[in-house]
Amino acid sequence: MNKYLTENKSIVLTGDRITGPLHLGHYIGSLQQRVEFQKKATQYILMADMQGLTDNGSTPEKVSKFLFDVVADYLAVGIDPKLSTLCLQSALPALSELTMLYLNIVTVSRLERNPTVKHEILQKNLSRSLPAGFLTYPVSQAADITAFSADIVPAGEDQLPMIEQTNEIVTKINSLIGQPVLTSCKVVVGQVGRLPGTDGSGKMSKSLGNTINLSSTADEIKKAVYSMYTDPQHIDVASPGHIEGNVVFTYLDAFCQDKAMVTAMKAHYQRGGLGDMKCKAMLNDILQELLQPIREKRAQLINDKAYLLQVIKEGSDKAKEVTQQKLDEVKRGLGLLIL
Amino acid sequence: MNKYLTENKSIVLTGDRITGPLHLGHYIGSLQQRVEFQKKATQYILMADMQGLTDNGSTPEKVSKFLFDVVADYLAVGIDPKLSTLCLQSALPALSELTMLYLNIVTVSRLERNPTVKHEILQKNLSRSLPAGFLTYPVSQAADITAFSADIVPAGEDQLPMIEQTNEIVTKINSLIGQPVLTSCKVVVGQVGRLPGTDGSGKMSKSLGNTINLSSTADEIKKAVYSMYTDPQHIDVASPGHIEGNVVFTYLDAFCQDKAMVTAMKAHYQRGGLGDMKCKAMLNDILQELLQPIREKRAQLINDKAYLLQVIKEGSDKAKEVTQQKLDEVKRGLGLLIL
Repeated sequence: MNKYLTENKSIVLTGDRITGPLHLGHYIGSLQQRVEFQKKATQYILMADMQGLTDNGSTPEKVSKFLFDVVADYLAVGIDPKLSTLCLQSALPALSELTMLYLNIVTVSRLERNPTVKHEILQKNLSRSLPAGFLTYPVSQAADITAFSADIVPAGEDQLPMIEQTNEIVTKINSLIGQPVLTSCKVVVGQVGRLPGTDGSGKMSKSLGNTINLSSTADEIKKAVYSMYTDPQHIDVASPGHIEGNVVFTYLDAFCQDKAMVTAMKAHYQRGGLGDMKCKAMLNDILQELLQPIREKRAQLINDKAYLLQVIKEGSDKAKEVTQQKLDEVKRGLGLLIL
Repeated sequence: MNKYLTENKSIVLTGDRITGPLHLGHYIGSLQQRVEFQKKATQYILMADMQGLTDNGSTPEKVSKFLFDVVADYLAVGIDPKLSTLCLQSALPALSELTMLYLNIVTVSRLERNPTVKHEILQKNLSRSLPAGFLTYPVSQAADITAFSADIVPAGEDQLPMIEQTNEIVTKINSLIGQPVLTSCKVVVGQVGRLPGTDGSGKMSKSLGNTINLSSTADEIKKAVYSMYTDPQHIDVASPGHIEGNVVFTYLDAFCQDKAMVTAMKAHYQRGGLGDMKCKAMLNDILQELLQPIREKRAQLINDKAYLLQVIKEGSDKAKEVTQQKLDEVKRGLGLLIL
């Protein structure tokens, strides 16, 4: 047993593509959960620069530019490099090698049937210009997950087909080898769904300019909150307002600890008499309180690049050993010579 | 400049899938040429176990079983590990990592248009069950070639589309990086075309049982030569015979040094009066003389597994350093962090 794998503890693999600084969507959707996971599970956090390239093949500068920002974000929200292993995907050759091995047992038609990939191909308008690396990235994810023997993968509902693909590969490889060398995994879906952008459009996204970053200044937060999409039909305070699709209430649901108060406010807003400005002021207070200490810690960290690099390096070294060991087991099982 | 790369010398990448012991087709098509190349170029010989898996994903035991046989074959024909670097593909992680990077700049439709892949998909009857690793193997070949900065790739005409794909990747990566980090390559087509099987059917192939291996015994050679496909209409010695598709003459063309004599024999055979047995006896003598010293040297070598392993290990260590250096150049060029 590898010295990094503690017996009877779940192994969690999570991570992010490194295409921008992290925002409130990341915080509520996954970072908070990671701070909890690291206390009770063996947690690996993969900074997925290689995966970032799958749809940025021609703009590679995008995928590493924010690496230090993201590490600073991680540490600022309370991810502890002593409890979680932070590692860089491109520093782990075993992940590429496992991908190459798995690609031989997954058919092209199986990949083309993957609903998540299908959806993203449409969304990103790729179709005929689909990069091979994008079509095959579920296999690369399977390599990531299995290389760490992760049994828990925190993810959204939309990632379920990815995990299904991973478990198919697990079954196939174990049957080829005749030993349970790979571990099957299950998704843990977060309690909070996807946080919408401040403009009410789908997902928070840097390119849409509808995010509140963990590094946003007090002014930026205030400006974002006060320009949030609410109920366009709620013209005057006295009239009833709608809370469906009202971003302020979605954020209050996500970030306000006093759930009873949010329920009362919603009722008040719906029957009329509660103004948008009051709701926004309250949300602003909550977010300022949440983000101020994170922003301050982050500002300190980002000035200490040497320390951030050391965190990446130490975590990646540890992850390299773990993933290399799994690769060797798979190679040996498939009859390849290990020199 | 890497210590293994000598200035102003061509760099040759060649190699074999390790799916069986080598035969006369390999000898005449490539091994002989390698013995020449190693005197004047920097030559890497890749034992392509990972590529062997691209269409043996479910029968992985096939791809490494003959590794020691192939190394013994190499050395027995005069490939000198001091002049050529013999290396094992699965021992070189940089090849998988480069493949992963290149997959992002090659579209699926480009791969589907590759004539060699198209042909092989038909030939191997893959179609819907096409493994993703098989569709993408031209990218993996591009990784192999460029990792060694090979400018010369000895191959058959049928491999030209592969090299075209490689050079497209070279151009694209160099343009992304803004520096000529990768070297473009050209094919050197061997002087002797593909040697047919002893039964006259297409290619020599272990599964068709129509090969003469470098390790074949004197009796096996004799038996194979005397049962060779000639001219089925050449019933009696006195009648004219055909030399087109007549395997004995194809082999005499390939292996007899005395070209004038072969020309004279062909004319005699065509006008009548030269029997198949005489031609076969002559071919048998030539092949016995060629293969006896190879077989004897091979028999010695195959008993010294420790030495063969050392050859593989030393070559792979050297190749690992060369390919890792190229990978780092590409990663750095694409803006990835090198820890």
